[in-house]
Amino acid sequence: MNYGIVAKVLGSILIIDSVLMLPPLIMAYVLKEDSFFPFLTAVIATLLLGFVLSRIKTTRKEIKAKEGLAIVTYGWILVSLLGALPFYLSGSVPSFIDAVFETISGFTTTGASIINNVEILPRSILFWRSFTHWIGGMGILVFSVALLPALGMGSFHIFKAESPGPVTGKVAPRIKDTARALYISYISLTLLQIIFLLFGGLSLFDASVYTFGTVGTGGFGVYNDSVGGFSTYVHIVISIFMILAGVSFSLHFFLYTKRFREIVTDNELKMYLRFIVASIILITVNLTMTQYNSLFYAARDALFQVSTIITTTGYSTVDFDLWPTFSKTILLVLMFIGGCAGSTAGGMKVIRVLMLFKLIKREISKIFHPRAFAPVKLGKKTVSNEVVARINSFMALHVIIFIIGSLLISLEGIDMLSAVSSVAATLNNIGPGFELVGPTKNYSEFSQASKLLFSFLMLLGRLELFTIIALLVPHRWTKES
Amino acid sequence: MNYGIVAKVLGSILIIDSVLMLPPLIMAYVLKEDSFFPFLTAVIATLLLGFVLSRIKTTRKEIKAKEGLAIVTYGWILVSLLGALPFYLSGSVPSFIDAVFETISGFTTTGASIINNVEILPRSILFWRSFTHWIGGMGILVFSVALLPALGMGSFHIFKAESPGPVTGKVAPRIKDTARALYISYISLTLLQIIFLLFGGLSLFDASVYTFGTVGTGGFGVYNDSVGGFSTYVHIVISIFMILAGVSFSLHFFLYTKRFREIVTDNELKMYLRFIVASIILITVNLTMTQYNSLFYAARDALFQVSTIITTTGYSTVDFDLWPTFSKTILLVLMFIGGCAGSTAGGMKVIRVLMLFKLIKREISKIFHPRAFAPVKLGKKTVSNEVVARINSFMALHVIIFIIGSLLISLEGIDMLSAVSSVAATLNNIGPGFELVGPTKNYSEFSQASKLLFSFLMLLGRLELFTIIALLVPHRWTKES
Repeated sequence: MNYGIVAKVLGSILIIDSVLMLPPLIMAYVLKEDSFFPFLTAVIATLLLGFVLSRIKTTRKEIKAKEGLAIVTYGWILVSLLGALPFYLSGSVPSFIDAVFETISGFTTTGASIINNVEILPRSILFWRSFTHWIGGMGILVFSVALLPALGMGSFHIFKAESPGPVTGKVAPRIKDTARALYISYISLTLLQIIFLLFGGLSLFDASVYTFGTVGTGGFGVYNDSVGGFSTYVHIVISIFMILAGVSFSLHFFLYTKRFREIVTDNELKMYLRFIVASIILITVNLTMTQYNSLFYAARDALFQVSTIITTTGYSTVDFDLWPTFSKTILLVLMFIGGCAGSTAGGMKVIRVLMLFKLIKREISKIFHPRAFAPVKLGKKTVSNEVVARINSFMALHVIIFIIGSLLISLEGIDMLSAVSSVAATLNNIGPGFELVGPTKNYSEFSQASKLLFSFLMLLGRLELFTIIALLVPHRWTKES
Repeated sequence: MNYGIVAKVLGSILIIDSVLMLPPLIMAYVLKEDSFFPFLTAVIATLLLGFVLSRIKTTRKEIKAKEGLAIVTYGWILVSLLGALPFYLSGSVPSFIDAVFETISGFTTTGASIINNVEILPRSILFWRSFTHWIGGMGILVFSVALLPALGMGSFHIFKAESPGPVTGKVAPRIKDTARALYISYISLTLLQIIFLLFGGLSLFDASVYTFGTVGTGGFGVYNDSVGGFSTYVHIVISIFMILAGVSFSLHFFLYTKRFREIVTDNELKMYLRFIVASIILITVNLTMTQYNSLFYAARDALFQVSTIITTTGYSTVDFDLWPTFSKTILLVLMFIGGCAGSTAGGMKVIRVLMLFKLIKREISKIFHPRAFAPVKLGKKTVSNEVVARINSFMALHVIIFIIGSLLISLEGIDMLSAVSSVAATLNNIGPGFELVGPTKNYSEFSQASKLLFSFLMLLGRLELFTIIALLVPHRWTKES
């Protein structure tokens, strides 16, 4: 591995990171909050480290797969460690491991928290906490839409007709173009939601932090009841923007450039919307027959909870852990499906589920026509065997990590649903699960070891598993052949 | 579809079935039990129907995929419906749906029961109940080792070096050879276990019924505490024979023909044993640190419960539902893995899990060597992309059916672990699960609709999913092209 170039790029990332810490720093200064010096320390530490790393001399400038994976993984970890400083130094989160957990949860746009009472925290700290979602959301877009395909690991973007992302070769210039398109889409969506929330009577602060949590599909709020205290209008606005944030940002860009045909013919989008509509209908019926008297409120709460779970955001308006098992099981399934590829959402991604359905359908028709040549198609394009194998491996690895994680967490001596759903909620970057990690609870009761494991799972899920796993495998798997 | 040949073959199956009902009939006669006339009715009805069907004239004798699937599926259903008659007519099981559930559970070697107190039933009824496991076990061997590969659907037997099963073409004569090899292995194993159990002081009756439940990996017992009341010697004998019954019967045949090299180099067997040993060690440690004072008893109970679950038998010696979550989670995972392909065990099968591990490993090395040609290998043989795709589709379909089943069962208004584990326990042909279907409970409390669903899931799991699903898909998928 070329450590020189890795360090150099990490340095640049940290310099950008220090700039992104300025808004909360300024806010702390203006509001005269005690968190000012903690933020100042964090900004200076980040800037200094970034400066030192970026000065490292390297002769080879080439970034190969291994360097790319190392930059992304170590970048996410470094930014989280430094981003945890304000929480820790300000005393908002007294344990450093807790502070790191909270920051990783923020940057991975998970939204799992160890803070019992967010309402007593300084505004600047709350702003930074939510802002990490927004930064992480942007980061994951650049990573998954621009960087992964450039490294030959983006299994889905080749499907999008004229994807703004590069296919092979010519990495740098096209990454820049792609990133610009993403910035435009992401910032537009952010501004639009803030405006809609201001209309709903929210303060600029509340509108901003809840927008960060929505477009980044993160889920940190500034009230202990998450979104529950807001009006129905706000519930619906946030629901719709969560759904939008779970759509591939390639499609957002097509919207701004008026290429509507690409949007309406997108197979992944169709299936994503079908999952959402079907889940809302089933849950609404189930709730109306059991716990709700009003069809309208049942539908409103179903809309919000389905949107928050499938997009892996993690806000809540009701304690869905009290819902009937049927509705909870639907939510548990949605936790694994996740949003569309190339969005800020986590989970396995709808495109992979879609591919599995196609594989099954092909296998059945093969029983009757064993000699027929039947390639898997997505829209009009044939999907290569390589890509199919990659998707299958991804899902298998996802399940294996989920199982190992659940086993380790179950050593806490907790019930199975808590163990399983807490691992699902962190690995898929959602936040809340069921039972001990239900929407009214949090992760503060777990041991330090479990919190580190959850942090690892959040990173694994966010960076599409293979990124990190590839760095951990035995050397002989990776040596040049 | 050529219904003539389907009916003809079904007729022959029913005639054999009526012969297999003679032992309990004779037993009822000798013991002067009230179940004599119910058995007589069932034998006559089965024989008559078999005779009528086998007389049906058909011009085309060819059995294609569709006919093969129809014979297997309708055969299993018909045999279960007729096999339910003695339970129902004797009053042992007052509801016909319950009787069908019990018989399907028997023939699919699941072992899920709706009978609250088995100890009060007539001996002939208990014998028949356990004998269905033995018949079903034999049936599934012929189906999965001989018939499926002949229909081009056996995804794993091509791996076995010089498998006794046919690869392609020449169906009939090789099915006969294969079936003979299977009979020999299966009957030898049965006799051996009966002898071992007689040594343990069991009566011939007890030794026989528990052997039927073991070699068929079924799990019906004749005592309410399953195997719990027997000595440690019996626990260990049954554990070992369950593990043996979960091994591919191709390997059993190699053992009798002294082809040891094929056995020790078998990759699936290695992984199966690794899963068993690792699970026993982990559970033993977990139990010793929590609920057990004796390492020996912890290991003995871990051995039994791990063997019963991974082989999908379903006997129990302790209420493992009371074990700590860590141990229970291991058992839940083993429920899905199941035994080896070509054994009487259910579940996804070890070979498929093995293939997934290989796929993941290949994908990781591909990140570093994107241009390297890396076929998936099993032993020295390359596995074709077709087979890899078939295995992936199977696992995906398994998960989808598991999810849909869990959703439907959750409409009973039960807790999630009961819903999920009851579906896992029937789909994987195990029997007991957790909570409401824990080892000390049974399926009697569920609604009639749920019992029908469970019956369907048992058949689906037993017949490798695609067999039945292929019969249910829209006609256009199956039409000749």
